[in-house]
Formats: sequence, C-alpha cells, structure tokens
Amino acid sequence: MALYEDLKVFSGNAHRKLAKDICAYLDIPLGKCEVFKFSNDNTFVRILENIRQQDVFLVQPIAFPVNDHIMELLIMIDAAKRASAGRITAVIPYYAYARSDKKDQPRVPITARLVANLIETAGADRVLTLELHAGQIQGFFNVPLDELSAIPNLANHFNARNVKSNIVVVATDAGDAKRARNMANRLDAPIAIVEKVRIGNQERVEAATLIGDVRDRTAIIVDDEIGTGGTVIATADTLRNHGARDIYCYAAHPVLAGKATEILEKSTIKELVVTDSLPVPPAKMGTKTSVVSVAPILGEAIQRIHSGTSVGAMFNGGGT
Amino acid sequence: MALYEDLKVFSGNAHRKLAKDICAYLDIPLGKCEVFKFSNDNTFVRILENIRQQDVFLVQPIAFPVNDHIMELLIMIDAAKRASAGRITAVIPYYAYARSDKKDQPRVPITARLVANLIETAGADRVLTLELHAGQIQGFFNVPLDELSAIPNLANHFNARNVKSNIVVVATDAGDAKRARNMANRLDAPIAIVEKVRIGNQERVEAATLIGDVRDRTAIIVDDEIGTGGTVIATADTLRNHGARDIYCYAAHPVLAGKATEILEKSTIKELVVTDSLPVPPAKMGTKTSVVSVAPILGEAIQRIHSGTSVGAMFNGGGT
Amino acid sequence: MALYEDLKVFSGNAHRKLAKDICAYLDIPLGKCEVFKFSNDNTFVRILENIRQQDVFLVQPIAFPVNDHIMELLIMIDAAKRASAGRITAVIPYYAYARSDKKDQPRVPITARLVANLIETAGADRVLTLELHAGQIQGFFNVPLDELSAIPNLANHFNARNVKSNIVVVATDAGDAKRARNMANRLDAPIAIVEKVRIGNQERVEAATLIGDVRDRTAIIVDDEIGTGGTVIATADTLRNHGARDIYCYAAHPVLAGKATEILEKSTIKELVVTDSLPVPPAKMGTKTSVVSVAPILGEAIQRIHSGTSVGAMFNGGGT
Amino acid sequence: MALYEDLKVFSGNAHRKLAKDICAYLDIPLGKCEVFKFSNDNTFVRILENIRQQDVFLVQPIAFPVNDHIMELLIMIDAAKRASAGRITAVIPYYAYARSDKKDQPRVPITARLVANLIETAGADRVLTLELHAGQIQGFFNVPLDELSAIPNLANHFNARNVKSNIVVVATDAGDAKRARNMANRLDAPIAIVEKVRIGNQERVEAATLIGDVRDRTAIIVDDEIGTGGTVIATADTLRNHGARDIYCYAAHPVLAGKATEILEKSTIKELVVTDSLPVPPAKMGTKTSVVSVAPILGEAIQRIHSGTSVGAMFNGGGT
Amino acid sequence: MALYEDLKVFSGNAHRKLAKDICAYLDIPLGKCEVFKFSNDNTFVRILENIRQQDVFLVQPIAFPVNDHIMELLIMIDAAKRASAGRITAVIPYYAYARSDKKDQPRVPITARLVANLIETAGADRVLTLELHAGQIQGFFNVPLDELSAIPNLANHFNARNVKSNIVVVATDAGDAKRARNMANRLDAPIAIVEKVRIGNQERVEAATLIGDVRDRTAIIVDDEIGTGGTVIATADTLRNHGARDIYCYAAHPVLAGKATEILEKSTIKELVVTDSLPVPPAKMGTKTSVVSVAPILGEAIQRIHSGTSVGAMFNGGGT
Amino acid sequence: MALYEDLKVFSGNAHRKLAKDICAYLDIPLGKCEVFKFSNDNTFVRILENIRQQDVFLVQPIAFPVNDHIMELLIMIDAAKRASAGRITAVIPYYAYARSDKKDQPRVPITARLVANLIETAGADRVLTLELHAGQIQGFFNVPLDELSAIPNLANHFNARNVKSNIVVVATDAGDAKRARNMANRLDAPIAIVEKVRIGNQERVEAATLIGDVRDRTAIIVDDEIGTGGTVIATADTLRNHGARDIYCYAAHPVLAGKATEILEKSTIKELVVTDSLPVPPAKMGTKTSVVSVAPILGEAIQRIHSGTSVGAMFNGGGT
Repeated sequence: MALYEDLKVFSGNAHRKLAKDICAYLDIPLGKCEVFKFSNDNTFVRILENIRQQDVFLVQPIAFPVNDHIMELLIMIDAAKRASAGRITAVIPYYAYARSDKKDQPRVPITARLVANLIETAGADRVLTLELHAGQIQGFFNVPLDELSAIPNLANHFNARNVKSNIVVVATDAGDAKRARNMANRLDAPIAIVEKVRIGNQERVEAATLIGDVRDRTAIIVDDEIGTGGTVIATADTLRNHGARDIYCYAAHPVLAGKATEILEKSTIKELVVTDSLPVPPAKMGTKTSVVSVAPILGEAIQRIHSGTSVGAMFNGGGT
Repeated sequence: MALYEDLKVFSGNAHRKLAKDICAYLDIPLGKCEVFKFSNDNTFVRILENIRQQDVFLVQPIAFPVNDHIMELLIMIDAAKRASAGRITAVIPYYAYARSDKKDQPRVPITARLVANLIETAGADRVLTLELHAGQIQGFFNVPLDELSAIPNLANHFNARNVKSNIVVVATDAGDAKRARNMANRLDAPIAIVEKVRIGNQERVEAATLIGDVRDRTAIIVDDEIGTGGTVIATADTLRNHGARDIYCYAAHPVLAGKATEILEKSTIKELVVTDSLPVPPAKMGTKTSVVSVAPILGEAIQRIHSGTSVGAMFNGGGT
Repeated sequence: MALYEDLKVFSGNAHRKLAKDICAYLDIPLGKCEVFKFSNDNTFVRILENIRQQDVFLVQPIAFPVNDHIMELLIMIDAAKRASAGRITAVIPYYAYARSDKKDQPRVPITARLVANLIETAGADRVLTLELHAGQIQGFFNVPLDELSAIPNLANHFNARNVKSNIVVVATDAGDAKRARNMANRLDAPIAIVEKVRIGNQERVEAATLIGDVRDRTAIIVDDEIGTGGTVIATADTLRNHGARDIYCYAAHPVLAGKATEILEKSTIKELVVTDSLPVPPAKMGTKTSVVSVAPILGEAIQRIHSGTSVGAMFNGGGT
Repeated sequence: MALYEDLKVFSGNAHRKLAKDICAYLDIPLGKCEVFKFSNDNTFVRILENIRQQDVFLVQPIAFPVNDHIMELLIMIDAAKRASAGRITAVIPYYAYARSDKKDQPRVPITARLVANLIETAGADRVLTLELHAGQIQGFFNVPLDELSAIPNLANHFNARNVKSNIVVVATDAGDAKRARNMANRLDAPIAIVEKVRIGNQERVEAATLIGDVRDRTAIIVDDEIGTGGTVIATADTLRNHGARDIYCYAAHPVLAGKATEILEKSTIKELVVTDSLPVPPAKMGTKTSVVSVAPILGEAIQRIHSGTSVGAMFNGGGT
Repeated sequence: MALYEDLKVFSGNAHRKLAKDICAYLDIPLGKCEVFKFSNDNTFVRILENIRQQDVFLVQPIAFPVNDHIMELLIMIDAAKRASAGRITAVIPYYAYARSDKKDQPRVPITARLVANLIETAGADRVLTLELHAGQIQGFFNVPLDELSAIPNLANHFNARNVKSNIVVVATDAGDAKRARNMANRLDAPIAIVEKVRIGNQERVEAATLIGDVRDRTAIIVDDEIGTGGTVIATADTLRNHGARDIYCYAAHPVLAGKATEILEKSTIKELVVTDSLPVPPAKMGTKTSVVSVAPILGEAIQRIHSGTSVGAMFNGGGT
Repeated sequence: MALYEDLKVFSGNAHRKLAKDICAYLDIPLGKCEVFKFSNDNTFVRILENIRQQDVFLVQPIAFPVNDHIMELLIMIDAAKRASAGRITAVIPYYAYARSDKKDQPRVPITARLVANLIETAGADRVLTLELHAGQIQGFFNVPLDELSAIPNLANHFNARNVKSNIVVVATDAGDAKRARNMANRLDAPIAIVEKVRIGNQERVEAATLIGDVRDRTAIIVDDEIGTGGTVIATADTLRNHGARDIYCYAAHPVLAGKATEILEKSTIKELVVTDSLPVPPAKMGTKTSVVSVAPILGEAIQRIHSGTSVGAMFNGGGT
C-alpha cells in the first residue's frame, strides 16, 4: 500500500519527452507546471496543481545546458517543498559532474558531492538515478537513493542481433572494467581493456595499449556515456589495429558533446546504441545511432517507490 | 590586526574587470585560478596558488548567464573550502533572483532564499554584497553579510552636475520608495512615485498613476536595477505627461536585458547612470550610459573585513 | 484524504479565545494542555492527551508579553515533538519582531530571522501565519509556510458600509504601499501615501509629506498593525490638513501599545477596524474599535492543511 | 597567546553589576551596547562598538524575568554574529530551566535541552556557566562549555567563621548529595540528607525523613539555588526536630522567588549565604543574607579562555 | 491506527534472544538480516526483506563488546535508511557509556552525548530505551525517546516473596536515591544510602558511611546496573556491619563485568535479580541469579509506538 | 605562519609507534593522554595537557579491532572539542570500511560514508589520510581532507633493487588499475590485470583471467591493502601459470587478516613490501615482509597543514 496518497510526476525543461513516456508507462498525465526564464535570465517555476501531501517525482536529467538544468531542478524542489509536497523524489537519469568525484590534483572541487549537497539542501527527500559513472556517488547522498542499471536493456538490445560467438566486451578505461564485466556476463563473453592516458585538463585523449585479446572478434565497446566521442574512436582504432572485426559501441548516456555524432558517423564503428536518459536532438541523431528507452524501468521504479515494493527485485528477478 | 594571514582575491568569469579593479585598489595581484567548461558543459575550477588558512574573497556578481555564474561561484567555494582556505567570503555585487523573495502566488519558489542556502551549503563563511533589491534578503543568510549601498556614489555623480534646484527623485514602484528617499536626502529633494502594475508572469508592465508632484522639475528616476528598461521608459513617459523637464535614470545594477540599451537610447531619458556591479558589454554600452565604479568601495570593504575594522564606518562617516 | 490521522489544536496563553473559535469552526474540542509558570518564573508545558502520530496545530500569536509567548510556543513545540506528534504546525496569526527584518544600521540583529530559526530548531514542521509585515519573512523559514491575508476580510467590512465613491486608500509608509494597493483594488479606489520619517530607535515619528490626492475624499488608512497609534494619528492629521473627509483606519493586528486606544479615541479617526489575530483586552477596547474575526479563515486553512487540499484556492476563488 | 585579538565583554539587562565587576577584574571597560524594549514589547539590541574578529563575551544570567533574559541573550548573540564577532561566548552564571532536564511524566518538554539548542542556533561558539543544577546539562550542549563551581567560594566563606567541629553538611534532596559531599570535603565534615517529596506540578513540598545524624551539630544546608525557600525551611525544621544546633544555608544561586526572603528572615536559619550569580534586588536583601561574589572566578575564567590557558587549573591548583 | 504500514523487528548480534522474545510477544516473525564481520574485521549488514515505508525497530542493547555493538547498530540504521525504511526506531534496552554523562574532570569526553549524536546522524528517527543511568540522558537526544522503567517488574518480583515488614531499600550512591525511592514506594518501605567514594579512573571503590537505618531489616540494594559487583559487595558489607539481615540485590542491567558473578556467588548476598536487558551468558549465570524478562514491556511499547497509542499509559495505569 | 599557536599530536591505541615516529619527525613530544577501557568495556579518554586553541592532530589508523579504534577516535575528538581545541585533524593513515562504499546489492549500508559522517559529527575539522581504497571516499567528507599517496615510497623501495628491465606491474582487479598505472609510471613499466570474481559475501576469491602480458617478466603486484592474502596468492598463481618470473607484492596497508602472513610465507611470492600505516604485530611479521615507513610523509603533511603551506607540493615537486 502507498504511504503517500497521490503519485505526481513533473518535468523540468531537460527532457520532457522522457517524462511523458514515464507517465505513459504509469498511465497518469504529466503534472502541470511552468518552468521558464524571465528576460533577466532568472529561472522561474510555478506548479499548477495542488501537491499537498502527495508523492512528487521531478524528472530532470542533467542535460545540456548543464548548469541551467541543475538550477531548474533545485528551484523545482524548493517550489515543491514550499507547496507542502508529502515527499519529493528527484529523478535524475543522467547525473552530470560525475567525473568531478575526487581531488586528483590540488585545489580542485569535488563537484559531484557539491551537487548532491545542493539537491539535499533544496529539499529532495530521495533520488532515483541511472548508471552512475561511479557507484560511490551513491555515497555522496545522505538521503535514500535508488540507482538503476542500463546494462540489462543494452545487453538485451545486442542479444537481439543473434551474434552468437566470438564476442569481446571492451572497456575504454581500466577503472571502468566492472561495467564491461557486467555486460560481458550477460553476453557470455570475455572482456578486454584499452588503456587511455588523459593529459591535464585539456581533455586530449591518447589511447594507449590494449590489455586482452580481440583478434577476429566482434567487439562491443561499453561505456557509461559518450562525450566528444574521442575516447571511443581512439579505442576503436586500437581494436581495429589488433584485428577486431565489427565494432559496436553501447553507452548509457548520449552526452554527444561537440562534433561527437559527426565523428562517430565517419568512424568504422558499426552502430552506436544509447538510452534516452538524455535527449538526442535531431541534429545529433546519426544514421548509426539507436536509442533504447529507459522510460519503462524508470516508470516501474517510480511505481515501486510509490507503493513501497522492492526496487531491487526489478533486477534480481524476484523476491523482495 | 588581521585574524587571517594573507588576503587573496579570486574571480570567476562573471566580471574579471571588476575583480581586477578591486585588486588595484587593494594593491595586490588578482589570485590565479582557472574557471572554465569542459566540452561536456561541466564547469571546472582549479585554484593555482596555495590558499591554506588564508583570507579568500571570491568576486562573482550574478551576471548573465545567471545559472552558470551561480554554479561557478558554488564550485569555486567548494574548491576553496577543500583547499583549506582559512575563511571564504563570497563577494556578490549583484545578487540575482532577488525578486523571487516571497510567495506572492501559490506553488512558487523563494529562489532568493534557496540561493542563500546553496551558498552557505557550498561553504561560504560570509557574504559581501551591494544594494540588494530588498533589505530582507540579508536575513536569508545565516552567515554574516555586509551590504554596501551604491546610493552615495550615484548621488555624488549627480551632485557633480550642479543642478541646484527644482529636483525630484522618482521611485518606479511604491515598494521601492525607501531607496528614492535615501537618494533624495542626499540631493535635498522631494520624492514622487510612479505606480506600475505588473500582470502575471508575462512581465508586461503598465505604468499607472503618478503620486507626487513633478511639474517643471528635473526628475531623477532611481532604481536598484535596469532590466528590460520597460519600467523606466513607462515611468519617464508618465513623468513627461505630468510636466517633468529633464529626466535622468540612476540605477545600481545594469542588468540591461533584451533590447534595454536600444530602447533607452531612443527614449527621452537624458542619461542612464549605473555602476559596474555587473559588466556592460560594449554592445550594450549606449551613448547615454555612464558607469560609476564600485571597485573602490568593494575594495575598501574587503580591506576592512580582512583587518577587522568597521565596514559600517564607511557610510556613517566615522566612529566604529 | 488526510495523511495524518487526527487533527488536534492546542493553545498557549497568548490567545485562548481565538484557539477556541478556530476549534468551533473545525467542530472539534480544543486540545487539553497546561501552560503555566512555576514560582521561579520558568514556563512549563504539559500536554494532557495522547498526540502520537497526530496532526498537531499550536495556536499562539506573539501577543504581549512577547518574549513569554515566544518561549511558550517553543516549549510547546518541544513537548509535542518529544511526545511523538506526527506533524507540528505553529499557527502564528501575529508574528512579532517582524520589523527587525534587516540590518539598517551597524551591529543590530535580524530578530525576525532569528525567531524563525528558533521555531525550526524547536521542531515545528510548518507554519501558518497571517498578514506578515513583509512578505520576505516567508523566506526566513525553510519549512513550508502558509500566509493568509487579512485584507479580504477588512475590505468586506468596509464594503458593507456602502460608501460608493470618492474613496482613497492611504498607506502610512512608502514601503508598505502594496498592502494599500491590495485593499484599494478591492474597493475600486486610488491610493495615497503619507511619508513618515523615523528617527533613531526612539520611535519618535514625524509624519511628513503627502504623496497623492485626498481632498474631499473618504480616507481609509491601511496598515498591517496598530502599535502606539502615533503613526496613524500623524497620518490622519496630514490627511485632515489636505482636506480629507471621514478618516477610517483598518489594520490587521491590534498591537495597541501604550496609550494607543486612548489616543485613537480622542482623535478624529472615525473608526478603527482590526482583526482578532491578537487579543484586545477590554481595557483597550475603545468605542471606535471594531473587530473582524480571522478564526474562520484560520480554521479553514487548518482544515485544508490537514486534508491536503489547496490553501491558495481560498483566495483565488477556486481550482487547486 | 590569544587566538583572537581583543577581549570584549557586553552585558544584557539581567545583571549589569556583575558584568561590570567582571570587567573590573579584567581591567577593561564594559563594552557599549543598547538592550531595551520598543513600546511594542519587542526587545532590541544595538552593539555600539566594532567587534569584528574580536573575542566577545556576553554576560547574562537567566534572572527574572526569565524568558525576557533568554530572548535578550539570543538576540545579542545574533547581533554579535552578524557583526562578525570572531568568537562568541555566552556567559550564563545562572542557567534557568535546569530542572526541566528530563521527561519524568508523559508529554512534557526537556526545556533545559531546548534552551541549549536555542543558544547554539543563535550562534554562540561556547558557553561559560556556574554550578549547574545537574552536571549532565553540560551534555545538552554540543559547543564547548566550561562550568565553574561556586562551592570553593562558599566553603571559604564558612571556613572564615572558624567553626571547627561538630559540623554536618546537609543536602535537601538525595539526588543532590554530590554537591553536599563536595562542600563537606572542604569542611572536613560528614553529610546528611533530608528527603523531600514533591507532589505533582504544584510545587507543594513535603519534607520527609532525615537520613544521617545531625544531633548537636552545626548544620549547613547546601543547595544549588534558593527558590521559594520552602525546601530550605522544611529542611531546617526537620534538622531542628532532630536536634541540630545552628543552621546555615549556603546556595549558589539566589533565585528568591515569591516571599522567599520574608520567609527566611522569620525562620530559625541563622544565615543565608549566596553568590551574586543572580542580582538580589534591595527588597529581597534580608538582614540574614550574605553575598559572595563570583565576579573574580568568572573574570579569571574569561581571561583564561581568551588566552588559551587552562580553566581546569583554577580548581585543581595548577598544572594544565 | 498505524501511520506506517508494516511493523518489522530486526536484531543485531547483541541479544537475539531478547529480540525473538519481543517478536513472540508481538506475534510476528523476527525480520531477516545478516550482521557479521568480514575477515578484515569490518562489520557488514544486509537486510534480507523489503522494508520500504515500513515501521522498522532495531533491537540492540549495548552489550559486550560495547563498541562492536554500537557500530553494528549504526550500520544497521544506515542500511535501513538507505533501504527506504518509513521510520527507524533504535531499541536500546541498555545504553552503555551512560556514566560518561558530564565532565567531572578536565579534558574528558561526554560520551553518552556523543553516542546520542552518532545514533541521530546514522538516521534513527526515534529511540526506545529502558532504565537509563540518569534521566537527563533523554535530553542528549533531539529525536523522540521513550524510556521504560524496570522498577515495576523488579518490585513485582520482590513482592511475590511475601516479605511483609521490616524492609529497607538501599541506594549504593546518594545520586541514585531516586531509583531506590521509586522501588521503596512500591514496597511501602523506607530507604537508606551507602555512600561510596570513587578514586580517579581506577574504579577502585571504597564504600563509606551509611546514611539511614538498616538494623534488623531485610535490605534490598537497588541499582541500575551490576558492573564488577564491587559496589554491591562493599554496600552489602556495610549493611551487614550495621545489622541488616537478608540482603538482596535488584538491578536492571546485568553488565556483570570481570569476575562479578564469581564474587557475588561467594558473597552474603542472598539473591541477585536482574532483567534480560542484556544477555547473561551461561558462564555468568550464577546459582543466585534470577532474570526477569523485559520482553513483554518492550514488545508492548513497540506495539503502542507503532499504533500511535500512549506509551505513558503503560505505567500510570490508563488514560492516554 | 601558523594560524593556530601550538601543534600537538596525540595517539589512540591503534598505532602509538607510528604516532611517536611522526613526533620524532616533527621534533616534538607525543601529547599526553589516557585512552583505555573501564572494566565495563566502555572506552575512556582523558587528555592530560592543555589544548585550548591549539592545533591538535589525533593519529589513529583504523587497525584491528576496527570498531574499537573507530570509537576511540570519535571519543578522542569529542574530548578534544569539549577541551576547546583550536582545530582538530583526524589523522587516519588507514581508513577501514573503504570497501563498503556503494550499494552493490539491495539493503546494504554505505559504511564508508557513515564513518565519515560520524567523524564530522564528533567534531573533526579536517582529515589527513593515506592511499584510500577509492578516491571518491574523499567526497564522503564535507570537511577538508588531504590524501597522501604511498606509491612514491613503494616505488622508491623497488627502484632501489636496480631491476632495470622486463618489469610488469600487476593490478589484482580491473577497478584498481589506476594505482598500478601510477606505480608503473614511476618504474617505467607496462601494466597487466588479473581479474578476479568475488562471490557473494563469503569472500571466496576466484582469480580468473589475465589481461596483458607477463611472460618472462618480473611482476610487481600492487594493491592498496593485503587482507587475507587470498587475492594476492591467486594472482601470483595466475602470473606464474602465464610465465612470470620473480613476483613481488607491494601494498600500502598491511591488514594481514587471518592466516595472511602464513600463507604468504609459503607462497612463491618473493617479497611483501608494505608501509607502517597499520601496525604489524611481531607474530604477523614474516621473513619476506619489509616495511616502509610513512611517518616522514605524515609528519611533513602535518607540518604543512599547521603552517599553512602546500601539501600538494610534496608530490608535484614544488610550487604551491
């Protein structure tokens, strides 16, 4: 039984399509609210329906422009809190600033923790997110957080191709091998790692050595997000040089910064498969791009959070 | 004597010119730091000199783009805190979102309070600001806050014109008459008020009735900020209709949204005098625009905060 | 549907009559509790009925003696929290210290913010209040706050007089014109402002110039509260000098400090209309004084907060 | 060496004489500030000298009227915090509400903890107090607290009488025997206890049985405070009935509620010795009352807190 | 009616037997969870059933080894919070560190307050405890706390003996006489006190003088806990020396440190009666030891907390 | 120049030898304090010298028994805070619970975050630590934290062997490859990864496939800590099977759980090199074990934190 009476879902401007798809899954209308900027560039929010004591979910992946969407989210939370919402869950399918999660040089911020503090300060009671860059970001929050994985959806997408053998799953970074391992387990395949070296803050990427064996294999590069595409291209080049055959790229979050789509289109990568955790504007939707929707798993998780049933059971096939 | 050893001033990207002018007043170099965006739109900050136990001032008016500059400020504070700064003062000559300071309709945020909470959460130990839209915003902060007034500087500027008599100071809103009264006292002049009615969130402004007498007087419209210019133009029209002669506009903060400069240039307003609390890009610098610098009073206040001498004494001419 | 089971209303010693009237509106008995002082001047509170998990409303306007009633409220909140109340709403129809809402001179407190912090620290989950001196005081609270307006009730009272034309609504301070405008809109009348100058902390009031036109009009002075009456008398004198006819005074809160009633009785003011947000002891109940009860709107708001229906809809005539 | 530059002592209205005596000990002038009530019963505070980064001590025992003096203290702390004091120490020689330190019946507050929270929320960095009713109240504070003992001063006073033998120190409550034991150790005497039973909240006291031997002894009743005097009188009666000879009463805090002085004057108690932790107004100064000043130990503790030397060493005769 | 849906009780490793007995009273199964140490000595917790929005009670007296059981409790609370429990009540029948409740010498901690802070920080919403060493420890918590008394159960146990007259209840410390008085009232008996002196931190106990009359009486020593037994033995010796007859010892908490059981077995104490607030391992279960179960009163209190009915009414025989 | 006057270092019972070595580096005596358990298993702390306003460093790696040493640290912090320390730095060379840094299964805690919260709640102003299991743990703290690296010391130790070529640095887990890369860079060597699979919570480790090339190379296994040794042994077996020659193991933290030393002694591993971040009791000091001291880098960092000079400059060879 639900602790809070009514379930309401609202959307900021980051990704209204996703919020609508979630509502479709839940079979409820999207909540009415205005989120816009005044001419003085101040973001304003007005919730247009009563939410007192209700179970409010605010859907807002931290899409481009990042800071605007963070502030939108914080202001929506403040408005919902002051409007006496019963419980406020920030639904953040893509959590930006996740790479600023430690001090790897002197006098830098840990912005991923800062943003967690901001969300809690604004008044969110809990968080629902998807495929964090690092699992430890869960621990940046004091409020309960549910993290969903995009890997089952992506693995199902690949499995539908019926490529049965000679597969290898490739991580683009040694620190990220766990995600590749997770994917590989679902495809019954080994993993390989392409080590890159990042130089300073200039984001220049130099793909380095390959660890593992890819010769004559169908390679599936797995990453949490596609940024400029530079890492993926360099990884693919390395794989090609070591004799890999078809190269696919599966990533949860289509950040697609700069000329990413253009670069990927020209590359030898056969297909880029992403989720709709972030909006892909038409101009960035390449011919090789496929999008797998996470609206159903987000909707299902919202339903379970609302009704007090287990979210973990979505992934381990049962029980509690 | 100073409680903290070294005074250091850093600037975000909102207004480096002002930060440099403050440093010139203080006769110290501007602190070295990088504040930029990665290609994934994530703001990054790196402070390039040791600040352990030092007295750090971060200069950042909340200029366009507003949300970026708030996030920059928060991230700089986080970086400074984690770099073991002795004390962190957020120097915010222009505080945006100041008009979201109450719930005047259901289910809206109080963003001015929210932003105060965010600044405190990030780790600021104190705030220095200038000419707040409403004095009560001071009370949105728990940490000590010093608010400077721009009115003495603006009054001095007008006094230098040697217009001796038949002056009237005009407020553009009944709620804002205290600022006009403050200016009027320094010019030994009466005040008048032009009442406007704001409709909904559409920002459409309808200047309404005049309260007070302006006929055959030199009118000085005083406001805390110039936004789209609509209010000022409407006010000037009303004044003109009631027989005012020369009409000047003095405002602390040159927000200059949309076509403000263009509109003001075409108007019958004789001169627009603002401070440099916000940057005025060349394209927005009209022929009628004069800028009075607040760098000296900000610099002086920083010096006094650092050395533990009275900031209040800057304004009441003495004592403590 | 209500999130919390039982609605209970308790009263401190500030204004038991109002609490009883609210309970009459709600058709429930006033909750039983003892609130008294020991011989050592320590306030003591004992709640005499079980309130576990219940929806508790503590009615306590900050009436004379102010500090005693604040402490009573805080101690009641502490007792209710430790008695495991489900939710605690501080019902504060009159919020004292509201004029200490900014630092307008060096080294003074912002007591209105301090008191908000105290109420939150004691453990209040939300606040219900009426006609704050300044709307920004809402933002002094982090917990949800509902502010009701007394203006509709006061306007209805005047409208019942059937004075149809030649009315003017007068604000006693330029900073307070919005309240007058609000009243004026309901009476379809223009506004005027009498500017006063307050000198130092001695509270000596010098009513100064009139802004606007009052000749041959029925003047309605509107204020949030009547303190010593000095401001109102001075305003009335100014109005009289400028040819106003009948002068009424409408104010939400009957503070009636010192000889206020005596002074008003002797004055040319025709009637003083206030609400019962504060108790008016018989000795202060002048022949010219009328009291409009806010118990119904407070009771209705409590009902709506309890049941999770919209409070805003009480004022905008509907919807949500 | 002092961490904070200047030591400043300010006083509320609770006991300016004590604050002045402390300043005399410290050989500094009492800090200038105004603490008064407006006609609307709102307490106001204005600190009249610069205190930026200074080491500020606010002297305010919680004397009658209790709630006024608590609010004064909180507002002074707020003013000092917002005036950028370097460190704020609340000097509270008498801590009221100390008997509300537990829930000994359902649905009562723990006001002693509440007041500790209020003081911390207002912004005090530390507390200096004297002879708390129960030592555990130290633990109600999270900030550092120094508690001084009045017993050495009181014991010295008695020792000066040269009553060499046949002394017994008497506690008025079994729970308070530790204080008597402490006094007894300094007088090289045994202790006895008179058990009283307190009924309900009516404060009616019924002195019950004596535990211990008092026959033919000079009895010194020791208590933390003298309230209505009822307990002391009943104790003295019991002692007299059991053959005690001269009966003295030594107590740290002269609360002297109601007719305490009158009752004590008429009693068989030979002398009442108290400290000046609270002011004793002339009307309450009986012929049998002696006052021992704690200004020197408070002054010395302030000096040591300021200079970072040991406060504990004041009591254990040395070291650190 | 219950505010939270399902009531679930979990146990750490401190006293699973008690948790099971509580569940038997409540007629529900004990919740499933793993609480164990990895080989690296890190405690780990995994809750094995869904607890979203449920009313979770974690049973964990702070038994030997004390620090392990505190950490277990804190980690269980963290796990429950992050698993989205609706409400978390820490059920702590024995609260260790209760004697570190004040600074009675320089530079020592107040660990009883520290532990309260830790429990709140971890995320407990409320606490249920039994027979605290000092009532003021209630005030170390900001969250609601219910303290049950073991005295009624212990008194009933003695009353069943049918010893009708010549009884005396003995406190082992003057500061603890209230507990003895409470017991004595239920047995219709007088009290006596044996004063001990504790020297330094070496825990060496020297029982000193007797206050009161015990000759030819059956003496019942009452204490909150039995530690090393040293205090009790010394007290019994003193009683014996003063002519007491049978000596019983009743204590709520069987800490039984070191050779306590062995010493007590050899002593002249006739029976030691304790509760099962702490587990008594078989090796410590002496022939003279009786255990009275507090599972029923803990179970009843949990039931009442869950259903929102009065816990106080368990003790005062009714009402609310 | 130092902001706080005196630098004092105290030690709990976890590793007094390390604390003494740090003091030797700093050329100051170790601060005097007692940290012990009463017979009732309650940890007690007494600081034996004045620390008011001083710069206090508490050295306490979280060694076996883990929970005792955490509680010791927390209680020491509380004692230091209440003794008015100027600043408290928790020096934690080994941070236990670091592997509980995310929820990788339902309803488990994030103990590494919990412990960070506990340390902040107790009152630590900052943290100094060494070679965290994951860099993100920095972000679990809100207070400033300095993390030192043990890799330079370990690399120097290996470099002293003069093994010039055919080296490979081996990570025992794909997620840990960054540490190996850091070591490899200093030895001018490539890296390899041995992937293990951990099953459930039983800690059974199955080393799986090798990624990379180790044939005929001197292999240096690098890890943050040596627990049971199982991972290292399995890794070494895999390396041996793939043709590695000499196999060394370098790890920062000698946890050495269970029979780790015994197992490592019997293994084909040539040498185990660890730091003294944790004490290695004689019984666990194998013939193959070498210990590199981190006392100098901890001492140097403490000196720099105290004097406000850059800690980062210790690692990047200069500047700030």
